[in-house]
Amino acid sequence: MTNAAGRPGASMQTIPTDECYRLLATHEIGRIGINAEHYPLILPVNYGLDGTTVVVRTRPGTLLRAAPHANVTFEVDEIDRQTRSGWSVLVRGQAEEVGEEHRAELVARTLATGVQPWAPGEHGTWLRLITHDISGRRIVPGELPPAVDPRAYR
Amino acid sequence: MTNAAGRPGASMQTIPTDECYRLLATHEIGRIGINAEHYPLILPVNYGLDGTTVVVRTRPGTLLRAAPHANVTFEVDEIDRQTRSGWSVLVRGQAEEVGEEHRAELVARTLATGVQPWAPGEHGTWLRLITHDISGRRIVPGELPPAVDPRAYR
Repeated sequence: MTNAAGRPGASMQTIPTDECYRLLATHEIGRIGINAEHYPLILPVNYGLDGTTVVVRTRPGTLLRAAPHANVTFEVDEIDRQTRSGWSVLVRGQAEEVGEEHRAELVARTLATGVQPWAPGEHGTWLRLITHDISGRRIVPGELPPAVDPRAYR
Repeated sequence: MTNAAGRPGASMQTIPTDECYRLLATHEIGRIGINAEHYPLILPVNYGLDGTTVVVRTRPGTLLRAAPHANVTFEVDEIDRQTRSGWSVLVRGQAEEVGEEHRAELVARTLATGVQPWAPGEHGTWLRLITHDISGRRIVPGELPPAVDPRAYR
């Protein structure tokens, strides 16, 4: 079966919320979307999870100047080029710098994620991404296309 | 040798412009950064190149409503989780919908990229991303850290 303009039999599926969080837990590199310098920048970072909250460490720079209290996104995906399939999860939320004003228990939980930056240099600052919404979509090869849900990965 | 807060011997390098374009040509999936719905959204897309111009195909939806004439970004990366290394290239530019007002030669070149959407459904619209700037950075494992260039991946 061939779709109107797609390839034969591929389908796009919405990923349920609990599966989105499960997929987040399987990776350690994601990408922060943040408005800075007149563009919606995309910055790869490694991350950890405190429950369902994404935690990243960063250093003085673009991200730290622009992130606190701003609406940001966080994206993780996995692509299989051979089968032309894969999934993508997108968190929409707000970035919050972890500082002395936070209660000790939250700071301890944040540090307990054990996020270790891959990049060299100073990464002394912790950011938590407060989730407003999480959504995901998956492209599955070789299945009959289901009814398209236009809200998928809204 | 251990960095102040990083891991031993890793280094961050700026990728020269021509190498950024060469890396773009090695992949077929990237991520568009675009402001829509109050967030800097990150949307995975497959893409082709017309020379140094990124070309994507899309269908009616968030991207097509928000992209034309807007400042957008386009990111491609490759991560090696075992060695904790990898590279990332970021294009900053402006999205432009290819339509009848364009000269036939540009339309022909755009279509010649042969971009085939992985996702099913209608993908009748072509977008070109007019590059304003391109930059990249690479994390190399196990080398002595060079002098850090704070302009890297600016």
